Amino acid sequence: MAMKVREIGGFHIGGHQVSLTGLPARPMVLTQGAAPRVFSADGDFETGQMYAQFVRLEAPAARYPLLMWHGGGMTGATWETKPDGAPGWQSWFLNAGHDVFVSDAVERGRASWSRFPEIYPEEPHFRSKQECWELFRFGPPGSYGTRTPYRGTLFPVDCFDQFAKQIVPRWGGNDAPTQAAYDALVRKVGPAVVMTHSQGGAFGFTAALHAPDTVRAVIGIEPSGAPDPDGLDLTALRGVPHLVVVGDYISGDPMWPEMLGRVNRYLGALREAGCVAEVLDLPAAGMTGNSHFPMMDRNSDAVAGLVQDWMRRQGLIGS
Amino acid sequence: MAMKVREIGGFHIGGHQVSLTGLPARPMVLTQGAAPRVFSADGDFETGQMYAQFVRLEAPAARYPLLMWHGGGMTGATWETKPDGAPGWQSWFLNAGHDVFVSDAVERGRASWSRFPEIYPEEPHFRSKQECWELFRFGPPGSYGTRTPYRGTLFPVDCFDQFAKQIVPRWGGNDAPTQAAYDALVRKVGPAVVMTHSQGGAFGFTAALHAPDTVRAVIGIEPSGAPDPDGLDLTALRGVPHLVVVGDYISGDPMWPEMLGRVNRYLGALREAGCVAEVLDLPAAGMTGNSHFPMMDRNSDAVAGLVQDWMRRQGLIGS
Repeated sequence: MAMKVREIGGFHIGGHQVSLTGLPARPMVLTQGAAPRVFSADGDFETGQMYAQFVRLEAPAARYPLLMWHGGGMTGATWETKPDGAPGWQSWFLNAGHDVFVSDAVERGRASWSRFPEIYPEEPHFRSKQECWELFRFGPPGSYGTRTPYRGTLFPVDCFDQFAKQIVPRWGGNDAPTQAAYDALVRKVGPAVVMTHSQGGAFGFTAALHAPDTVRAVIGIEPSGAPDPDGLDLTALRGVPHLVVVGDYISGDPMWPEMLGRVNRYLGALREAGCVAEVLDLPAAGMTGNSHFPMMDRNSDAVAGLVQDWMRRQGLIGS
Repeated sequence: MAMKVREIGGFHIGGHQVSLTGLPARPMVLTQGAAPRVFSADGDFETGQMYAQFVRLEAPAARYPLLMWHGGGMTGATWETKPDGAPGWQSWFLNAGHDVFVSDAVERGRASWSRFPEIYPEEPHFRSKQECWELFRFGPPGSYGTRTPYRGTLFPVDCFDQFAKQIVPRWGGNDAPTQAAYDALVRKVGPAVVMTHSQGGAFGFTAALHAPDTVRAVIGIEPSGAPDPDGLDLTALRGVPHLVVVGDYISGDPMWPEMLGRVNRYLGALREAGCVAEVLDLPAAGMTGNSHFPMMDRNSDAVAGLVQDWMRRQGLIGS
């Protein structure tokens, strides 16, 4: 799977300076063997920035770069090598001819995070393995204790602890700066296809609303939310096709039917406004066993292939 | 600068599970538009893991992969695109024929971090721009207010705010888990050259002590510390050449002479034990103006070339 790469790099985008005063200084040892030194906590800090990393191909087949936006409590690692060690979607879409930008949203990964409550209004939430196991539909409610997965799951549950090493703290109050940074990323990159996962879904839908001439398509993998369409004029999105991909084990879940209900309401409004807004329901299409993380499931290549086919049908991949 | 890439990926390594109980639950809104839900803070969590990302070439010229370990309060972004937008050392060494592993140490970037004081013993330190400006020798003590840099500096000080977006919180008490994760990374990757920056220096020196048959060379870019050599048997490192690279503006600095003194003491002990332990003092070699971040300075390509020459002299690059 050798590929000719033109450029690899990364950058931070968005954010601004804040200044703090009146915080207590304290002694710390920050380098092995050094004497304790008193450090001030006051000063100027950047906040609200995000991070993106790009791999540009020598000869991409896709018309636009693919921006890959992870979900809540996760980072760009979502798209890289899978917890079972097999190649993930960053690799897959590079090999399929896309320039790829994998990013870490505000507050996560290489984007950094800011002190609370002085800058972020609240403390973070540390998502436990229990919460992930159920929310990500690896097993039914109550099954974490014995780690008994859903029958037929394609998530590599024997690698669940490896998966859990990716989890990062998350906040509940940072939607506005996160959206602002994503919007700045779209402006910087220019025309692009936005692929989101979970919490990234609402940010991707909104980014297209904010820049309908720049975002050329939105692909929501299991989006956990979407804008409320009431009062929104969606006609500007007629040239921006939307695809939502949904996995298995939804109907008996205590949370996902409601979350996907809001997504489907938004997609319905898009269609009413004359936009392309399609749902790829994997079990309905005969592909059963996908979790909330189809990019990590054992059939990730097959799901990626269906997404690639959709992009080709939308004219997003060169002849 | 197109290159043939065999594989791009990432993984987490090291760490273990901890379980917390008795913490208060609280209501949070974690997805736009959803109703508040009460989340438990109890449960199982991974802690102590680190993250690494690799780019493997189709036909590397170097004998071993190059592991690039960032400094304190930073992430792997240190090695990527420079704050002024020009290619950094990840690109440079890839183009020079090295497989490259860029990592985020425990507590930083995509490695994630753990709650305090329940898991990490203390709260983090948020390094201000003032502290960075002086500690990284962009300007002399007291010069941050006017942002007046050292005369002749090669750091792109007009991009200092962009640089500051990379800064991440750091802790003072995580040396042991950080070292353990680095040691696990070395075991996983196998024979490799370790290149460190700043706080990474002591971790790299120690990794070689722990695995002298696996670490094939140590290149410390401005290391801020080193092991105390008293009582250490360093003879196992006779096959592991060490190079330390030091920039400009050291002598008048309030902290760096002492920190580099400890490094030089370790290098002296290595030489006494019959090891190769060289110092590349850039100003003494006629290259003036380098900051604590030579990989981001305007002459970064030239400094990288000197490091590459040293590796070639040590037999680390194929004929």
